Amino acid sequence: MKEVGVAIVGFGTVGAGVAEGLLKGEALISRRCGLRVALRGVADLDIVRDRGVDVPRALLTTDAMALVARPDVDVVVELIGGTGVAQDVIRAALEAGKSVVTANKKLLAERGAELFALARGRGVDLYFGASVGGGIPIVRALRDGLVANDIRALHGILNGTCNYILTRMAAEGSGFDDVLADAQRLGYAEADPTLDVDGHDTAHKICILASLAYGVSVPLRDIPVRGIRGLNPVDVRYAGELGYVIKLLAVCKAHGDKLEVRVNPTLVPKSHTLAAVNDVFNAVLVDGSLTGDTLYYGRGAGREATASAVISDVVSVARHVAVGTPRAAEPLPPLGGTPYTLLPPEDCVSRFYIRLMVREACGMVGRFATILGDHGVSIFAASQHEATEAQRAEGYVPVVILTQPARAGDIAAALTEITAQGIVRSMPFHLCIL
Amino acid sequence: MKEVGVAIVGFGTVGAGVAEGLLKGEALISRRCGLRVALRGVADLDIVRDRGVDVPRALLTTDAMALVARPDVDVVVELIGGTGVAQDVIRAALEAGKSVVTANKKLLAERGAELFALARGRGVDLYFGASVGGGIPIVRALRDGLVANDIRALHGILNGTCNYILTRMAAEGSGFDDVLADAQRLGYAEADPTLDVDGHDTAHKICILASLAYGVSVPLRDIPVRGIRGLNPVDVRYAGELGYVIKLLAVCKAHGDKLEVRVNPTLVPKSHTLAAVNDVFNAVLVDGSLTGDTLYYGRGAGREATASAVISDVVSVARHVAVGTPRAAEPLPPLGGTPYTLLPPEDCVSRFYIRLMVREACGMVGRFATILGDHGVSIFAASQHEATEAQRAEGYVPVVILTQPARAGDIAAALTEITAQGIVRSMPFHLCIL
Repeated sequence: MKEVGVAIVGFGTVGAGVAEGLLKGEALISRRCGLRVALRGVADLDIVRDRGVDVPRALLTTDAMALVARPDVDVVVELIGGTGVAQDVIRAALEAGKSVVTANKKLLAERGAELFALARGRGVDLYFGASVGGGIPIVRALRDGLVANDIRALHGILNGTCNYILTRMAAEGSGFDDVLADAQRLGYAEADPTLDVDGHDTAHKICILASLAYGVSVPLRDIPVRGIRGLNPVDVRYAGELGYVIKLLAVCKAHGDKLEVRVNPTLVPKSHTLAAVNDVFNAVLVDGSLTGDTLYYGRGAGREATASAVISDVVSVARHVAVGTPRAAEPLPPLGGTPYTLLPPEDCVSRFYIRLMVREACGMVGRFATILGDHGVSIFAASQHEATEAQRAEGYVPVVILTQPARAGDIAAALTEITAQGIVRSMPFHLCIL
Repeated sequence: MKEVGVAIVGFGTVGAGVAEGLLKGEALISRRCGLRVALRGVADLDIVRDRGVDVPRALLTTDAMALVARPDVDVVVELIGGTGVAQDVIRAALEAGKSVVTANKKLLAERGAELFALARGRGVDLYFGASVGGGIPIVRALRDGLVANDIRALHGILNGTCNYILTRMAAEGSGFDDVLADAQRLGYAEADPTLDVDGHDTAHKICILASLAYGVSVPLRDIPVRGIRGLNPVDVRYAGELGYVIKLLAVCKAHGDKLEVRVNPTLVPKSHTLAAVNDVFNAVLVDGSLTGDTLYYGRGAGREATASAVISDVVSVARHVAVGTPRAAEPLPPLGGTPYTLLPPEDCVSRFYIRLMVREACGMVGRFATILGDHGVSIFAASQHEATEAQRAEGYVPVVILTQPARAGDIAAALTEITAQGIVRSMPFHLCIL
């Protein structure tokens, strides 16, 4: 049986999971693949701390570069994260003609194009299935399973922390800060939750999926991103009353030669498949030209789910190494074909949910409806909610409007004008509707 | 750019879809894969009838074997179906050292072991992604994405016709025959619906998934199969009142070295992910040792969805052909490892739904509860339903029981005894609960 040597760089949570999975799963993997995937070593600056996994000390080293350079290492697994040392390790491996498996979404979102070019140049694989969706094989589905489809649209719930917070806010009517604090206590949110709750993690992932699905390199900075920080529980409640749940959605959608890519909290109809994706689960809904809608659902994070995805990539790459065709699959669909350009955010069309605190005076509702109409925005449904004591004392009542499909730019202009005219207490709050 | 020649045998609905997809998608596919997948010909006994697709007449032939034998054909796509000519075509192709793609679940379920052995012997691929789940890449997910996982359990809604009928029965309270007739009118059910509604199609598919997930060849005749024909709408209603929907589930589950494989209508809690799979959609829930639950959802049938899966396989096989490693992936996990044997159906443990027409007389409920208890079956919930006029006139009232987990054999024995003792009008009706 052929043997392929693997090195892991980064002995954190996922690294420990991959090491354990490779050692424990050796028999299963060789039975399924007909080759031996041998762990040669694990590198980390700290090789003393107990990771709670059974990895022989002889496999541990602090010298990542020496491990990568070993002649019996064929595949390098980068699990350091970030864009510093991780990038050096990946470049060193690729330049030495070794295939790389990584879960580093930030690095791929920022430097993917260069790294894939380097991999192509050296004729090796750069696999990244664990960078999006944890244990859900969505990258494989796009790359292989849906290869005959033009992807019409892709909607994803890609961040478990946000989805956990939103699920609990909807179920309990709790406030954002309370649930976030709880999520941090339970280990579902980081001490610094910025990357998650402000939507950046989701943006990294949709950036990678967009490049896979549409063969374009989408600059991260060009993706409009809005997170869920400070989401008002009143909007969660109103949405619920109207038959919607709020989810942090990543959207990627083709309109002719324009590509709409965005991340924002969105009202999802309760009858929609994505509305049932709760807690830390992730899901990606892909609308293919042949398949129609297909959905992929599972745990988007966690040591074992992510390790599963990494090992799956290691096995695929090892198969290529074993038969001497390390470039059996393109790292990404080559650029070319329809030259997509990004749709400017203000041109995105969607239905909208708008909550306004309207001055309690005769004719106010008529005035803002007129202003919306002047900007080409039609109202689909409207309801005035009971004001709290405090709101009534101030002379404002909450009104919620659902619009017909409208340009984001027109909505913004209309809301600015409504605010300027003193019809509302402050700039109205709005969200997209799926 | 390398070119790989493809022949399609069988110009039916799916064959036409694949031919169209290959011709229309040629540019997309070569852009994504870096190779040209060229359609050499399409064989069928009838090459006159209009299939509504734009395939040049010069590509059509009635001589399947001659097409398969052409030296410029590298990959043969078998879409005839059945176990006759289809098998001859596949054998001829494999023996000529050509890789094969098929959607023929019946043939694979019945003769898979031999055909895969033949493919292995000739060093070629035998791909079958379209045989289960249509456009849902579940075969790939099991083969590649979850390769590092022991599969703990697999639950599938695998037949669109049955799911359509069950969805409408639940939504409308209609009878089985009425909905079936409607489904036939709408083209969602065949004129002879036996294969679908009696569960055989589902059995073929779980047979294939079981062999993939557990590396065992499960004889089709050993799988206990129960379909949905004649399902009483009253059970759909009672299930709904108790918080369940009835789905035709295929189950494959490991218990130590025993494998539980079965197909039967099952009560699924409304809060369960599979309960939301409606209409003609299919879904497979896979519980992997590392990933936990992952779900794959989409259209399980239809020309385009199935064509998508076939073309995806053609592309994978063509990639192997192009780099000269036609056996880059094993057709199936090689046998070996844990030698699973099938769990006898009577040893399957599940909660059960039981509907009994109990004789309206003092102490009857106590008597059957005692008999259940004597067979080790505990009652989890029970409710007596209002009898219809006719039932009351006959002196029987409907009672529904949900049991705690119990052996199927014990349930059967208890129900037989209850019937023999004249406590009920006829043999009670029972279903598994997920």
